[in-house]
Parts: sequence; structure tokens; C-alpha cells
Amino acid sequence: MIYSAQIRVRYTETDQMGFSHHSSYLPWLELARIEYLRESGYSYKELEKRGVLMPVVDIHCSYRAPAFFDDVLKIDTWISELKKMKVKFEYKIFNQDGKLLTEADSLLICVGSDGKPYSMPSDIYEVLSSQVTTCH
Amino acid sequence: MIYSAQIRVRYTETDQMGFSHHSSYLPWLELARIEYLRESGYSYKELEKRGVLMPVVDIHCSYRAPAFFDDVLKIDTWISELKKMKVKFEYKIFNQDGKLLTEADSLLICVGSDGKPYSMPSDIYEVLSSQVTTCH
Amino acid sequence: MIYSAQIRVRYTETDQMGFSHHSSYLPWLELARIEYLRESGYSYKELEKRGVLMPVVDIHCSYRAPAFFDDVLKIDTWISELKKMKVKFEYKIFNQDGKLLTEADSLLICVGSDGKPYSMPSDIYEVLSSQVTTCH
Amino acid sequence: MIYSAQIRVRYTETDQMGFSHHSSYLPWLELARIEYLRESGYSYKELEKRGVLMPVVDIHCSYRAPAFFDDVLKIDTWISELKKMKVKFEYKIFNQDGKLLTEADSLLICVGSDGKPYSMPSDIYEVLSSQVTTCH
Repeated sequence: MIYSAQIRVRYTETDQMGFSHHSSYLPWLELARIEYLRESGYSYKELEKRGVLMPVVDIHCSYRAPAFFDDVLKIDTWISELKKMKVKFEYKIFNQDGKLLTEADSLLICVGSDGKPYSMPSDIYEVLSSQVTTCH
Repeated sequence: MIYSAQIRVRYTETDQMGFSHHSSYLPWLELARIEYLRESGYSYKELEKRGVLMPVVDIHCSYRAPAFFDDVLKIDTWISELKKMKVKFEYKIFNQDGKLLTEADSLLICVGSDGKPYSMPSDIYEVLSSQVTTCH
Repeated sequence: MIYSAQIRVRYTETDQMGFSHHSSYLPWLELARIEYLRESGYSYKELEKRGVLMPVVDIHCSYRAPAFFDDVLKIDTWISELKKMKVKFEYKIFNQDGKLLTEADSLLICVGSDGKPYSMPSDIYEVLSSQVTTCH
Repeated sequence: MIYSAQIRVRYTETDQMGFSHHSSYLPWLELARIEYLRESGYSYKELEKRGVLMPVVDIHCSYRAPAFFDDVLKIDTWISELKKMKVKFEYKIFNQDGKLLTEADSLLICVGSDGKPYSMPSDIYEVLSSQVTTCH
């Protein structure tokens, strides 16, 4: 499964170079994987209430071309690796002209509300494991 | 008491107009009042551990002149009103040339960790009430 | 005219108090007035290309109740005052249960690309002046 | 040369997990390399005025342990690779207890004010090339 989230670049996300600051992308990627989970039947908000937290432990972004204020971006999002205790999301961001702007990936681990490593609940694991996508 | 906090404008705090985005000031004011409290003998981090939270319920900023990337700003900070359950901070922000850039105020209330209104511990109240400053 | 923008609270917009940080609202209000202008036939991006910039010179927010992660907020947005060189927007933010969370207003001035005060182009002024709304 | 920048974690940089959001680190790394350049005799603000822009084209962060509100972090910063048109910075972030929290690197390219690739002015190149550090 590949989920396409959509965002519009906010004015506050630009900097004086005239395009979106590179740190703006991390909240976009977070939003995209939250929407991916929602599409898969899981509200991340509900997961946290069940005591499942998924902090980011590794992130990589390759910026190929800038995103400008008011651009409407499509964020293709998929799971490329899944273990009981971690999940790797990959992303490709395109602008409204179909131009590839950014490639990124992020590794998240599962922890309980005590901050200790935690196995993902088996219902979620089953659903997500059926969606692992190795290429895009 | 007037406490002068100092910050340097970060690149990410600018936008494509070429100066700092107006939303950047709110974290600066927050930083300034946390430093004010530290100077008064209270770590806001420790206050939260004691169960005293101080959310902002009202904010006003008047922007007279822009702050630019790399500017070193002085944030004069004082308490203009104090009640058992609320405190009003006022601020004047100056740049390195002594130019007044912004005047602001923010009202905070005290709540307990249950989110309910809460009287400030009397030790803090005593200290802060001796510092109330009505003009600057 | 009252325009209702919609946003969903991002995870990154929360803080350790467990709800959205008070500085998050300013980008939301900015987004809401940009959508208001788009609805009125004006892209703010295009306005800047025409040399019309609209920096914020004054902002006020009154926070009545918190917004939580993943909440879907409705931002009612209208123009309450209009002059050739400035425009005042007002806002009411409601959550998905219809609860009023925040009331805010912001004053913007028109400047040219040289940063000097500038009269709004008359076509925009005509359109916006027909939409001034004095109460909501 | 290894330059140690210092920052204090702002309240707004936390999220509802109770520690600093992973996107907060990118502005810290940016601040650290701007201070590195200043220490080397170059103000990035002045470089931009000379028409030398250095956008980030690649970033990688590995988060090993969380940073909490009010923590004072030390950001060891050095240049690990230098070409006429690009520079790679590496970083290690430690908290006040000397615990390693994060390892990161970022690749920047030089562009002119027209956005086209651009060779770094030779004075800067000479200075920075004498500081390349291959391990830490």
C-alpha cells in the first residue's frame, strides 16, 4: 500500500531563502504517516491512549528541489520494513507539477508509556505487515 | 524587577519576507519568562514537577519594527499584575542597536496537573509579588 | 463574508502539557486569512508577486480551551476593519464538537517590496470592502 | 576543528510525548553550523549578502536518547568533507550529563543568489579546508 497525503506549504514554513525551510519537512512526514495509519484503520491518537508510542529514532531526507509557499505537495508514503518493535516508513514528495522534490525515510520504534521497548499489538502488526512495500 | 533575556534570531525563524516571522516571538517571550522565573529562584521545570502548570490564556503583541536573522535581541520582561491564580507578564524587545521592535504581554493562569485552576504555592507568590513592576 | 478554514492539529504542534502550544495558533490564523483571500479571488502568493506584502503589525489571542492533537478545527475568519493601508482580520476557532476554543484578531498593513507603506490595489480594496463584517 | 555550540531546550520544542520533538533538532544543527562559521571568521549573514547561499540538500539524524525541556545541550560540530561546491557537517549532541543523545550529518551546497551552483569563494574554502576533521 502507498498512501498519498497532501499538504499545502504554509507561509511560516518558508525562510529568507524564499522557499520552505528544510526542517518543515519533518512535520509533513509525520503528518503523512499519521494519515497512513488512519487509512489502515489505526488512529495514532488512539494508539497512544492504548499505551503504544512510536518515537522517531532515525531520519534521513534528501532534498532535490525546493518547495515554495502555497505549493500543494503530494507525499507518497509506504512501509518498507516492519518488525514487532520497529517500522520504517519511506516517502517521496512531489509538487503540483509532478516534480519529485524530496526522498526520505524514518525509522520508528514502539515503546510503552514507561518509555521501554514494546512489541506492537498483534492486530496492528498483522495489518501493517500485509502492506509492506519494497519498491516505489 | 525587570529581567533582560537575550536571544539570537535563528535562520529558521525568518520567512520569505526576509525577517523573523511574527509567530517566532511567542517562543521568545516564553523563554524570557522562564528565565525570569529562574532568576527569581524558580525553575519552571521544577514547578511542573511540583504539579504547577502555567498555560498562556491571553497574548498580545505589537510589532513596530522587524527583527532580522542573526540579530541579537534583548527582551525586557517584568510582571505587571499578580493574583493567586494568574500572572501577567509584559515585554519589550530591543535589537542590538537599542531600537524598540515589539511590545507584548501575556496572561498565564495556574492549573494543577488535573488541568483545574490552582492557587500558586505561597512561596512563589511571595517572591513574585515583591517584584511586580507597574511601569517600564 | 465569513470564511471557515479547516485544519487538523499536528503532533509537532503539541507540547509537554499535552495540548497544542499557544504559538501554533499564529500559523493557523495566517493560513485562514490566506484561504480567505483565495476565496475572495486573490492568491496571496500572486499579491506578493505584484509587490504587495501584508506583514502582521499587531496580534491578539484569547485562549479559552485547549486544542488537542488530531482535533479538526474550524477557523471562522472575517474582516472587521478595512482601510487603504491596513486590514483587520478577526477569528473564532472551534473544535469538532463545536466548542469555542480561541478568539483572535490581527492587524496587517500593506507595504511595497521596498518595505514602505503602500495603498492596497483598488481592485482588492473594492472586493474586500464589500465583505467587511462587523459582528459574528 | 570541532566547535561546541550550546543551546537550551525550549518549552515549545517539546511535544506531548514529554521530550523534544525530532524536528527541533534541525534548527539546532543549523544554529551550530552558523556558530561554527562565525568562529571560523565568517558570518553566514554576510555570506548571503555577498551572494553565497548554502541550502541543505541532505540530512540524517540518529536519535539515541531524548532531550528534555530545559536541558542544556552541547552540539559538537565539525566539517568532515569539503569540496568547492559542497560541505558536509557532522554533529554529536550531548546533554548536561555528558550523555550522547544524537548523531547527525548534513550536506550543504553553495548556490548563488540566482539559485545556480556556485563555487565557494576561495578565502572561505582555504579556511574551511584547513579545518576538515575526519573523526571525532
